[in-house]
Amino acid sequence: MNIILLEQSDFVGDKNEVVLSGRRFMHIKDILKSSVGDTLSIGLLNDRLGEGEVMAMSANDVHLKVDLTEPPPPALSCKLILALPRPIVLKRLLGSITSLGIKEIYLLQTRRVEKSYWQSPVLEKQNIEKALKLGLEQSKDTVLPKIFLKKQFKSFVEDELSDIVQGTQCFFAHPTSREQPQKMQGPVTLAVGPEGGFIDYEIEKLQQYGFSGIHLGQRILKVETAIHVLIGQLRLLI
Amino acid sequence: MNIILLEQSDFVGDKNEVVLSGRRFMHIKDILKSSVGDTLSIGLLNDRLGEGEVMAMSANDVHLKVDLTEPPPPALSCKLILALPRPIVLKRLLGSITSLGIKEIYLLQTRRVEKSYWQSPVLEKQNIEKALKLGLEQSKDTVLPKIFLKKQFKSFVEDELSDIVQGTQCFFAHPTSREQPQKMQGPVTLAVGPEGGFIDYEIEKLQQYGFSGIHLGQRILKVETAIHVLIGQLRLLI
Repeated sequence: MNIILLEQSDFVGDKNEVVLSGRRFMHIKDILKSSVGDTLSIGLLNDRLGEGEVMAMSANDVHLKVDLTEPPPPALSCKLILALPRPIVLKRLLGSITSLGIKEIYLLQTRRVEKSYWQSPVLEKQNIEKALKLGLEQSKDTVLPKIFLKKQFKSFVEDELSDIVQGTQCFFAHPTSREQPQKMQGPVTLAVGPEGGFIDYEIEKLQQYGFSGIHLGQRILKVETAIHVLIGQLRLLI
Repeated sequence: MNIILLEQSDFVGDKNEVVLSGRRFMHIKDILKSSVGDTLSIGLLNDRLGEGEVMAMSANDVHLKVDLTEPPPPALSCKLILALPRPIVLKRLLGSITSLGIKEIYLLQTRRVEKSYWQSPVLEKQNIEKALKLGLEQSKDTVLPKIFLKKQFKSFVEDELSDIVQGTQCFFAHPTSREQPQKMQGPVTLAVGPEGGFIDYEIEKLQQYGFSGIHLGQRILKVETAIHVLIGQLRLLI
């Protein structure tokens, strides 16, 4: 937690004052070991960053006077289309993808995605949001990514993909592709398959919508590793 | 498991025959659903890759006739010096670093590493090896990385670092550095600090031995995310 992430519902009375209990309070008390008068890095969800001064602290909560002055860091110019990974992987991945600044994530059914994954509690709205907020707290960002659940590959591609990719360069990661990722200037849409890869039909469909294949060398990587290496290789970080 | 990783102790009688039980047998039986006559991708630890033909299968084990013909994929030209991460992170990281082809990993005590981490069972020889083998199985490699545990920052740097970095370009990842990672031609030594970063003294020491700082943008990333992005950015993958 590199910032304390506030929400509108934390504000009380005076519009510059928040009261925090629970996880954020425990962090301020036990990890940061803050006391009255200390200043903390804070951010307001989908709003600015700034500082919070500890005004009072009880056994259960902390009062902060907040001053929100800075814009959040710029987003990464990258949309991500991701075959729904195993729930335990997804949970970690939502945090790390968020920490990299990706703001638009499509979780997609593909042939080699186990359908049972869609039943996982990780996909419940409040759990997705929890995972995303951990990523924001990590990277000192406030802007919650948008997550879209797409359970039909065909209709997603045929009805929505044109709009999503408009104005972006589109790539899918695939072991048999020849092209190596290059440094990108403009915005990118990246499609990453499941552990077993996209099937030929899916690749043809993606190509039809302007996607080209890139590969990451001869080693087969886990989805988590591959996504991060790929974002590094495209050199999109600011 | 993209290859079945064999060890010398798996061989029986004829030197081309192995018998596997336990985890690898279960994988062949339940995941690959192989039967007699099928051919599997295999590799011999620290040796060649090849194919194994299923000769016989019982309720408890499988006999393979193996043919080892191909060299393992080339190693990544990168040594890694890593401030010892939290055990749960380390366990995952050993697998993913191995899958990327890194063959020399120094786990290092730095000021901001919690000393209790050194007591974790994850650091026991057989558990480290287990984690590394998962990475080899993932990436179809056979060459076990060498892991060195270095509990004294000062003596590691003063007595060993010169030899380690010889002939490599040396970088440490640090948020306040100005330089961005560039595509590398030759071998690299990469030093990655703990979640709280290196302290000034440690950075001065690294600089003294030829390390220069690189940064990954204004976002603070988890060690796991940062390592993978960095390896992507240095474009060391073959």
